[in-house]
Amino acid sequence: MRFIVADWGTTRFRGYLIENETILDQVSSDEGVSALQKGQHRDVFLKHCKQWLDAEPNAPVLLVGMVGSREGWREAPYAICPAGPAEIAQALVPVDLENGRKAHIIPGLFCEPAPGAADVMRGEETLVLGTGVENGLICSAGTHPKWILMRDGRIERFATYMTGEMYALLREHSMIGRPATEPADQKGFDLGLDAAERNAGEARVGLLHLLFCARAAVVSGRMASNLLAPYLSGLLTGDEINGALAQFGRPDTVTILASQERADLYVHALARHGIKTELKIPQQALLAGLARIVRQHSQS
Amino acid sequence: MRFIVADWGTTRFRGYLIENETILDQVSSDEGVSALQKGQHRDVFLKHCKQWLDAEPNAPVLLVGMVGSREGWREAPYAICPAGPAEIAQALVPVDLENGRKAHIIPGLFCEPAPGAADVMRGEETLVLGTGVENGLICSAGTHPKWILMRDGRIERFATYMTGEMYALLREHSMIGRPATEPADQKGFDLGLDAAERNAGEARVGLLHLLFCARAAVVSGRMASNLLAPYLSGLLTGDEINGALAQFGRPDTVTILASQERADLYVHALARHGIKTELKIPQQALLAGLARIVRQHSQS
Repeated sequence: MRFIVADWGTTRFRGYLIENETILDQVSSDEGVSALQKGQHRDVFLKHCKQWLDAEPNAPVLLVGMVGSREGWREAPYAICPAGPAEIAQALVPVDLENGRKAHIIPGLFCEPAPGAADVMRGEETLVLGTGVENGLICSAGTHPKWILMRDGRIERFATYMTGEMYALLREHSMIGRPATEPADQKGFDLGLDAAERNAGEARVGLLHLLFCARAAVVSGRMASNLLAPYLSGLLTGDEINGALAQFGRPDTVTILASQERADLYVHALARHGIKTELKIPQQALLAGLARIVRQHSQS
Repeated sequence: MRFIVADWGTTRFRGYLIENETILDQVSSDEGVSALQKGQHRDVFLKHCKQWLDAEPNAPVLLVGMVGSREGWREAPYAICPAGPAEIAQALVPVDLENGRKAHIIPGLFCEPAPGAADVMRGEETLVLGTGVENGLICSAGTHPKWILMRDGRIERFATYMTGEMYALLREHSMIGRPATEPADQKGFDLGLDAAERNAGEARVGLLHLLFCARAAVVSGRMASNLLAPYLSGLLTGDEINGALAQFGRPDTVTILASQERADLYVHALARHGIKTELKIPQQALLAGLARIVRQHSQS
């Protein structure tokens, strides 16, 4: 089965012509959702994908990612957890292409991690459904890492951490990251993981304190300045992992959905907890997840 | 006794001619430490304070704040906690003014909150010594709030939180604070304090998760966007207070050293823990602390 997809995030547009889980053709541009105004999305999509629409008149068309947010083509209301392929396919939101043909936006997911609290995702739900994990814990590690609990093939609940964005804020805009020097010494990552333990279990000194201490260690001459950046990364990652394990328990294995470089950090940090890891490549998971949703949609 | 002081921080220069704890004359400029190059400090000081030096040839001259940092006039090595007026007066660092006259830089303090960890202050030590608190817990609430444990008139140890800077980072540079709208509804502060409890005690979901949840609550329509900014403030302040109480225990009373507006937030948040507060005005504490150090220095 052939289908046409746009993986349309905040900063990038990526179009694919797919047969089953194989990419036949692709296109990419920087016309992400944040670069567009309301009303421009249809033209951008047609500019990049019209030749595929013409060549494959019966291929389903799916849109995934922030294209379904309030700032996107059309807001696709979040499906509510627990949700699997059936619930997501039911909540697809159509938009008009041309000559009566429609594309369908994959909705994001909402979950209530505590009464009155809220967490959301847009895009990761599709990758997660493509991992093949029916039961277990998945970590999708990007700018906003998400820990996702799968039960019986559905996304039971999840928790998002702002770890990657926080690291960038500290490096680019804060007094905390200012004393950092390059080239960085990666040994700092383990020192940061050590420091994170001061905010775990009974001890709970607070992440905002540990972040200041990182700067203090450098300005007082207790830590070399080229350790600071990896130290901050380790501290944030360690605090994220401690929080996730507190919420989701301590499984034997966690599935990591990330680029190799980023996954390596989680593999290393989780090994310190005695937790094994399985790696999945995000693009493969995306294609497999899309194929599941397309099949589900075609059956309904 | 008359003395001359510069309270010389990162962004401001403030000169005072003082008699005991009364300001006789003062001057202020934006020639903070971050605006100056090495070698400029003496000229800036003389430009603003020479008339006092001439009029009071025997008055001691003290410099307090970031002027003693590596980026300041001359680096004044940190005194080590525990430290009181005697230890601080002993560690004063002289710099040349003119005609053999000297000013003395008040050193900051270093403490080791855990083996190998580091925390520092520059300036707050002087305010703290001016509060009159001999035993007890003080919260000096600025951009980087500091919780300071006093024992027998000396600073026993302290912990700094990057709360205020973090709030500014989130509001000015992050995706988390972006959906916030004005005018803010201050009810959000209490909701943020509530959320901070999800990261206290046995539960420990992680501050980086709670920060993302704040954004998620708004984009999913669960929280009004004008609650978000006070919510973030409450969440950060609540997490700071939970961390500080975990480190320093739960005293009956905490002394708050802050402007009225900022102090109000701590008074409110600590009342939820059943903790009373006493307020001290920072400028009065500064003058009293300086007078103590000057007296100690004159005796030695």
